[in-house]
Amino acid sequence: MSNHFYYGGDYNPEQWPRSVWDEDVGLMREAGVNLVTVGVFAWAQLEPREGSFSFGWLHDLLDLLATNGIGVDLATPTAAPPAWLSVRYPDVLPVDAAGARYSHGSRQTICICSPAYLERARTVVTQLANEVGHHEAIKMWHVHNEYACHVPYCYCDYHAQAFRRWTEQRYGSLDNLNDAWGTAFWSQTYTDLSQVVPPRLTAAFVNPSLDLDYKRFSSDAYFQEFLMERAVLKQARPDLPLTTNFMGFFKPLDYFGWAAQMDIVSTDNYPDMSDPEWPVRSAMHCDLVRGLNKAAPWMVMEQTPSRVTWHNPNVPKRPGHMRAMSYQAVARGASGIMFFQWRASRTGAEKFHSAMVPHAGKGSPVWTDVVALGKELASLEDLAGTAIDAKAAFLFSWPNWWALEAPSQPAGGLTVDDQLMWLYRPLFAGGVNVDFCQPDESLEGYRAVVVPSLYLISEEQGAKLLSYVEAGGTAIISFWSGIVDERDSVYLGPYGGPLRPLLGCDVVEVSPLPVGQVLEVQWEDGERGTGELWAHVATQRDGQVLARYSRGPLSGRPAVLQTGYGKGRAYYIGCRLDHDSLARLYGLVPGLHARATMAPPEGHVERVLRVGRDKRYEFLINYSGSERVVEVAEGGTDVLTGRITGSRVALEPAGVAILRYPHPSGGRPLRRPQGLKP
Amino acid sequence: MSNHFYYGGDYNPEQWPRSVWDEDVGLMREAGVNLVTVGVFAWAQLEPREGSFSFGWLHDLLDLLATNGIGVDLATPTAAPPAWLSVRYPDVLPVDAAGARYSHGSRQTICICSPAYLERARTVVTQLANEVGHHEAIKMWHVHNEYACHVPYCYCDYHAQAFRRWTEQRYGSLDNLNDAWGTAFWSQTYTDLSQVVPPRLTAAFVNPSLDLDYKRFSSDAYFQEFLMERAVLKQARPDLPLTTNFMGFFKPLDYFGWAAQMDIVSTDNYPDMSDPEWPVRSAMHCDLVRGLNKAAPWMVMEQTPSRVTWHNPNVPKRPGHMRAMSYQAVARGASGIMFFQWRASRTGAEKFHSAMVPHAGKGSPVWTDVVALGKELASLEDLAGTAIDAKAAFLFSWPNWWALEAPSQPAGGLTVDDQLMWLYRPLFAGGVNVDFCQPDESLEGYRAVVVPSLYLISEEQGAKLLSYVEAGGTAIISFWSGIVDERDSVYLGPYGGPLRPLLGCDVVEVSPLPVGQVLEVQWEDGERGTGELWAHVATQRDGQVLARYSRGPLSGRPAVLQTGYGKGRAYYIGCRLDHDSLARLYGLVPGLHARATMAPPEGHVERVLRVGRDKRYEFLINYSGSERVVEVAEGGTDVLTGRITGSRVALEPAGVAILRYPHPSGGRPLRRPQGLKP
Amino acid sequence: MSNHFYYGGDYNPEQWPRSVWDEDVGLMREAGVNLVTVGVFAWAQLEPREGSFSFGWLHDLLDLLATNGIGVDLATPTAAPPAWLSVRYPDVLPVDAAGARYSHGSRQTICICSPAYLERARTVVTQLANEVGHHEAIKMWHVHNEYACHVPYCYCDYHAQAFRRWTEQRYGSLDNLNDAWGTAFWSQTYTDLSQVVPPRLTAAFVNPSLDLDYKRFSSDAYFQEFLMERAVLKQARPDLPLTTNFMGFFKPLDYFGWAAQMDIVSTDNYPDMSDPEWPVRSAMHCDLVRGLNKAAPWMVMEQTPSRVTWHNPNVPKRPGHMRAMSYQAVARGASGIMFFQWRASRTGAEKFHSAMVPHAGKGSPVWTDVVALGKELASLEDLAGTAIDAKAAFLFSWPNWWALEAPSQPAGGLTVDDQLMWLYRPLFAGGVNVDFCQPDESLEGYRAVVVPSLYLISEEQGAKLLSYVEAGGTAIISFWSGIVDERDSVYLGPYGGPLRPLLGCDVVEVSPLPVGQVLEVQWEDGERGTGELWAHVATQRDGQVLARYSRGPLSGRPAVLQTGYGKGRAYYIGCRLDHDSLARLYGLVPGLHARATMAPPEGHVERVLRVGRDKRYEFLINYSGSERVVEVAEGGTDVLTGRITGSRVALEPAGVAILRYPHPSGGRPLRRPQGLKP
Repeated sequence: MSNHFYYGGDYNPEQWPRSVWDEDVGLMREAGVNLVTVGVFAWAQLEPREGSFSFGWLHDLLDLLATNGIGVDLATPTAAPPAWLSVRYPDVLPVDAAGARYSHGSRQTICICSPAYLERARTVVTQLANEVGHHEAIKMWHVHNEYACHVPYCYCDYHAQAFRRWTEQRYGSLDNLNDAWGTAFWSQTYTDLSQVVPPRLTAAFVNPSLDLDYKRFSSDAYFQEFLMERAVLKQARPDLPLTTNFMGFFKPLDYFGWAAQMDIVSTDNYPDMSDPEWPVRSAMHCDLVRGLNKAAPWMVMEQTPSRVTWHNPNVPKRPGHMRAMSYQAVARGASGIMFFQWRASRTGAEKFHSAMVPHAGKGSPVWTDVVALGKELASLEDLAGTAIDAKAAFLFSWPNWWALEAPSQPAGGLTVDDQLMWLYRPLFAGGVNVDFCQPDESLEGYRAVVVPSLYLISEEQGAKLLSYVEAGGTAIISFWSGIVDERDSVYLGPYGGPLRPLLGCDVVEVSPLPVGQVLEVQWEDGERGTGELWAHVATQRDGQVLARYSRGPLSGRPAVLQTGYGKGRAYYIGCRLDHDSLARLYGLVPGLHARATMAPPEGHVERVLRVGRDKRYEFLINYSGSERVVEVAEGGTDVLTGRITGSRVALEPAGVAILRYPHPSGGRPLRRPQGLKP
Repeated sequence: MSNHFYYGGDYNPEQWPRSVWDEDVGLMREAGVNLVTVGVFAWAQLEPREGSFSFGWLHDLLDLLATNGIGVDLATPTAAPPAWLSVRYPDVLPVDAAGARYSHGSRQTICICSPAYLERARTVVTQLANEVGHHEAIKMWHVHNEYACHVPYCYCDYHAQAFRRWTEQRYGSLDNLNDAWGTAFWSQTYTDLSQVVPPRLTAAFVNPSLDLDYKRFSSDAYFQEFLMERAVLKQARPDLPLTTNFMGFFKPLDYFGWAAQMDIVSTDNYPDMSDPEWPVRSAMHCDLVRGLNKAAPWMVMEQTPSRVTWHNPNVPKRPGHMRAMSYQAVARGASGIMFFQWRASRTGAEKFHSAMVPHAGKGSPVWTDVVALGKELASLEDLAGTAIDAKAAFLFSWPNWWALEAPSQPAGGLTVDDQLMWLYRPLFAGGVNVDFCQPDESLEGYRAVVVPSLYLISEEQGAKLLSYVEAGGTAIISFWSGIVDERDSVYLGPYGGPLRPLLGCDVVEVSPLPVGQVLEVQWEDGERGTGELWAHVATQRDGQVLARYSRGPLSGRPAVLQTGYGKGRAYYIGCRLDHDSLARLYGLVPGLHARATMAPPEGHVERVLRVGRDKRYEFLINYSGSERVVEVAEGGTDVLTGRITGSRVALEPAGVAILRYPHPSGGRPLRRPQGLKP
Repeated sequence: MSNHFYYGGDYNPEQWPRSVWDEDVGLMREAGVNLVTVGVFAWAQLEPREGSFSFGWLHDLLDLLATNGIGVDLATPTAAPPAWLSVRYPDVLPVDAAGARYSHGSRQTICICSPAYLERARTVVTQLANEVGHHEAIKMWHVHNEYACHVPYCYCDYHAQAFRRWTEQRYGSLDNLNDAWGTAFWSQTYTDLSQVVPPRLTAAFVNPSLDLDYKRFSSDAYFQEFLMERAVLKQARPDLPLTTNFMGFFKPLDYFGWAAQMDIVSTDNYPDMSDPEWPVRSAMHCDLVRGLNKAAPWMVMEQTPSRVTWHNPNVPKRPGHMRAMSYQAVARGASGIMFFQWRASRTGAEKFHSAMVPHAGKGSPVWTDVVALGKELASLEDLAGTAIDAKAAFLFSWPNWWALEAPSQPAGGLTVDDQLMWLYRPLFAGGVNVDFCQPDESLEGYRAVVVPSLYLISEEQGAKLLSYVEAGGTAIISFWSGIVDERDSVYLGPYGGPLRPLLGCDVVEVSPLPVGQVLEVQWEDGERGTGELWAHVATQRDGQVLARYSRGPLSGRPAVLQTGYGKGRAYYIGCRLDHDSLARLYGLVPGLHARATMAPPEGHVERVLRVGRDKRYEFLINYSGSERVVEVAEGGTDVLTGRITGSRVALEPAGVAILRYPHPSGGRPLRRPQGLKP
């Protein structure tokens, strides 16, 4: 494995006759594959009947792969239980909010609190670890698969019982629980723990504090199962790196806690290619995953060579975009580029999901591209020792996501996705790289911290941000931040809670806007912009007003403020500003000066800077459909071609350049190594 | 209580520590609050465990309020059962049409036919009445809350049994039932009462006659529970006025029957402020509620100071619109202006519902407006003794609503809301005030009676309208009226049933129009208009054709007819005419001459005339965003400012004027007192 | 019955008092009715209590009809079970995928695998056949009604058991089953037959092979019930022709197999009249039904005189369109024109469905039209002995329909309806008539065979098409054909499977297009067209490229190819071409030269040619709203007027002409008699 990157995909040979296996390894070698994920859907093959195991075929497979120098990321099969399990133990099947029990027939149909499921899962993982865990082919443990992907919430009685225990542990007493959830409202006070039930079918809004805790609990319930599997695997082979494949911005699971228990963080990245902003979303996905565990490397565990099966339509990647998207991940620190799946299935629900070996075989452009990328990655120099030059951090938290999108919020249109895309887009367009941080992390070293509608924030989290600003940092805070504490309980007084010292104004009301209504915003120099979606209603306090609403009922009230705090300062944005206004605001912050002002997605060239002790790399990726010429620093070497460049680089459609420069140019200190295999 | 109006809101102090109560009463005095609704969500506090009651806190609260001169509208807590009830008696939870049982977790999750619910409700109401019913603070009984708001229909076996008993009482025999429901169609004939089931999950249309009766029954089932609570309360304190809060045009409950059992009719009025026509809807809401019991006063029990929580987005009231909407209710006869709720909750599903005391506290514009309105209302002179000058009546009936919107109708687009708005809009725009009447009422004294698609009408109701016209009245009847009797059974022959003498034509077919198709209509003088949604296919009989279709397959057929009948006349409209054509038609009717022709909502000033024995008032409310000048009779006194006006009054955006004139000017005789507290 | 056509409708006298019956037969005679369908909804009347039968009223009715010379199509009442059945045997009610059991209250609420249902259905049919089966009035057996119309799929345990037996019979062994369904994917391998369950509620895609077989099984389960009823009826009266009423393009039932068991194929044709393309859809409906059993006659069992009740809105037929649509069916071979229903119901879910005798009675235009058509049909000469001059065949298969629209397909927008309409429209517009054939039929004699996205095709079916082409035929194949075998298992290699020899290229990838994306296509002569929805990605092989993509990522790749094969040739279309491009392609095929190029629906005159041994007829139907002049062969006689025509015929709006010519003009040999009563 001279390749500095993992390259390969999910390999499910149980779907094919033995003769195909030999063809497979030959093709893998041709494509430069050095790692395959095995066993994800193999429970029925490994344990065809309860307690009756069959590992012979797997030994053979591992031998074959080892012989051919192909490493294995060995997966536990627990995400796809076999048919016999639910026939024998019907209560392993989850139950929906209305009380309907799901049926076997697709995958992941699991009640994660079911004792029978947990017992059978532990058994098959233990057997797997014991039977083949020491095989030389195995290079990595892969726990389960896409946890909670299809049934994030189960409402059965096991869940009800586990939820009661969870609330008991969290709150200690019924009085605390009643207080935390504000049960006095709507006469919901509990007088016995048995009265607590999951947020099942109700006719009106469920108590949002209960709902928030049910989301916390459900994420934890899956996490407990992960920890169980992890313990079994680590006991068998503590030396092997371990991961489970995340799904980026996947709402049901709070990945920050999970990532801390992994040796390498991995993710499945499937942007909808019919969305012209897919490069922005995909970049943000990479940045999030990189930030989940800042002490560990990360990799792409799954992407598609071209199409998926669950969009409508499933638009293919345009020529070159599979490669471009792969380099986007490499630029942003990925240690591996893997695909789902190696060989396209003949049958089943994903037979039309593109694969490295398509139905059409070697004549297809997908295969050509897969082979070419494998070759190129294998020849790429080691990027380890350099780190993304992230000038800014985005604060992100799952509990905030859950609470902010509750149905009883002032406006359903105020979503985390909308806020993130709005605030991230101008930075992406400008080539300014960012990290994602949870509000509990140290923010030291960032030039700026962006706070996208952090509705839910604890006192402690608020204090952390204040300390950061006080010490000289810059915070950019969007509306509807600092509204509730961790219990979804409102901070009384003008809105803002612990963030109030940074707002510069008293937010006395909020004004969600009807779809299509546009507010006019005027900057102090007379320039005009617009606001949509939402407006705070605020009274200036100690901040300096940068822009005001200039028409309508809010006319004259502050829209954007700047406030000094300690050695730092904060910007507060009261409505969803238009792209240019937001870019203007970012332009006020040292370090966020954009190097380009092209609006994505058309015409855009993505720029990512990786900085190390003795070199730096600039990645350039052209997503547009035509050639682009980019101005760069002189004297770089394109490591893909070996050519030395002048001050301008021409990029073909879907073209990529990786310019290496001998000396680091400023940039913040190295935060942690990236691009490493663990 | 020198204030001639009730002013206050829902007060839920059980959500707050005792210290806040003292602050509350101080603020209430500041705001001029004289009535608060207490206890709506207090069941869990009053009866924390089954049979174990706790009234101490309520005594304290009532003492505190009495001491501060604040009256109490004491609510029974039965709309929000506590968690223990459904744990102990799971069958108090309702069941949906597919058989899924609802879960505790929001509010109003009640099976109104459940014996356990009824027994526990009776007990807690009895205890409440006995324990605190004689407290001096209590000024009014408030039964339950927003009956049937979230679960209007339950399909459980208790309901099935009760429905069978109900049908037995209504029809006496199975033969009658089979005949009434036309069960011979689709082989649905019942041969035993046990075969009758609620309209549960079916694959095709349920028998619409059964469905209609299930709606009647469900409304009645809730009404029976109301009567039970009423009896308990009236026994304890027959002297106290009693109400329950309606919700205006709330489809599931036939409020006409309910209102007869109330001393004051109250309503919760929550128009969606993102609808530019909200003033029209809100005016119609007031007119409906005023007409539900023409012998009783009415009041606004709930409105929001600014935003609600169940729209998306929840658009706030613009500056001045809370006051404007309050005066709209006063103009239309309201005896009180109340809000949900007094103090904004910190937690729960409605924490972002605006309140009189907002989260932001006294610095918010909402608080300022609440205090200002309280002060102004307290200083307003007594309007009692004057009545709305309603020239016209709208016929309205819940059974018609239920039947007209059945899924097996010729066109789903023909809705009651659409018909009412279409016919009401030009009158609102023209300052012509109307009453709402059920078809069984006396219509004497009205210049005109508007009949909006009264699809379902009994022979007796039809005869009543004929008598009214015969005696000199004018009827304006829109298409698809007089189609079925009270059993939803078609009147055979050309359509119209008992109304045929008023139609002037034989309606031999109906022609629902595709969305977007517009018919051309031509008046006898050549002027052109349009028709949408629907057209009758008619042959002229004894009526005079006022307008005809002038293109397409219906070309030459009558669209609008006028028919003399006795001393009166009728207008029949065969399609949904455009606004101007309808206004032209109204212009033909003496008494409906509009005083203004502005189309709502933009530019509109609402005008309401209140006429008494020795004075009259004209209310002017400007909903537009800019100043409006209105021509009025000279010599009025604006009772809000004391100023004497000339022939023109200028109104600021959201401005209100109430002009008092010494002598009544024409107008119909006083029908009943309005603006009175009971 | 001198009338050469059946004329009449569903007659449900059990809804009316006896006195109305006499009026009915008088009106029937006035309208020329010679056949009525009786008993469809009569189970409750025939068997008011289990095992207690009542046939007296039916004897009376049959006597009355016979006396008046009106024949009876006697229906079994099994489609509308009485209320007592489900009270007594709750498991006759079907269960949905989430486990909810349907309730009695509409119609057709049947679990077709329920033993109790099957036993009671057999009993009532046997009683009916024995009691009145020999009555002279009866001319035809009508089994059940609109099989599976409302509950095509039931998921109860009876169905699960029957499905297991069905799979056992189909596959013989679990190994075969696992192989056919590709259960190795997602760990779905069965190790015991009891593990097989219907495609009930799942969180992700169900195995599409299982789903396909569940659709096959469900169609078969209904078919078994039909065969049971058929056997009972045929035993009683083997001499009577037997039918059940189909619904044209009804997805759940594979009608090809059913039709083989009928003496006359009948259909219910209810196009949505708000769709301007209804004449095209209705024509296609006729062509499909005519092709289901090419050895039997066919008839329209139900159409509406004007409106139905389940569209929204239910737009009426424009003046003349009921007649025009009837002649469309006659032109395309119908032996009878029947309506639902005779007399409009007063109550029930279909009371606003138009009827031959409308609510308004004889004054309505519907009645006038019904009488006129009856008279006209009775005087029409016998068209028997002539056949549709169908130059082309469309290949159609239900299993393909089921598989092609599975949710895991590359694009949800690729539907059978879309493909059929796209390919049929230019032929309809050009007056080129087509037959529908299943891929297993002989295609001999057709000038061309159109293959609309025949995604699923067996090796045997593919071989049949190849033989046809090899022998000199022409195939026109649209994209995404030849992808999977009968198990929904992909043919590996470049796409096309057994059809690859006809494609002329290697299809190496597929590219579903986002909605709104339009590809530019350029023909070899430079003319440009467009492609939407989908594009193949292909490499030219042995075909001649007729058109290429000329922009975007597919630029230069072949879009349309022509390939010689044996004595014939094939055209392959890789995207959804625009109408003109498709017409251009059709123009290359001898026999598909259009006689008109008007795009439907506006301006269109439908032309249908019927050819016999010694005469031919040309039907002309003008659906446009204005007069149309059509060029025809000289010397025809309009059999409706007796007039001899020149070279131009003028048609009024909705006008119809049937030109008879003495000699056949070319045309393919007579395939089978049409327009015959059995």
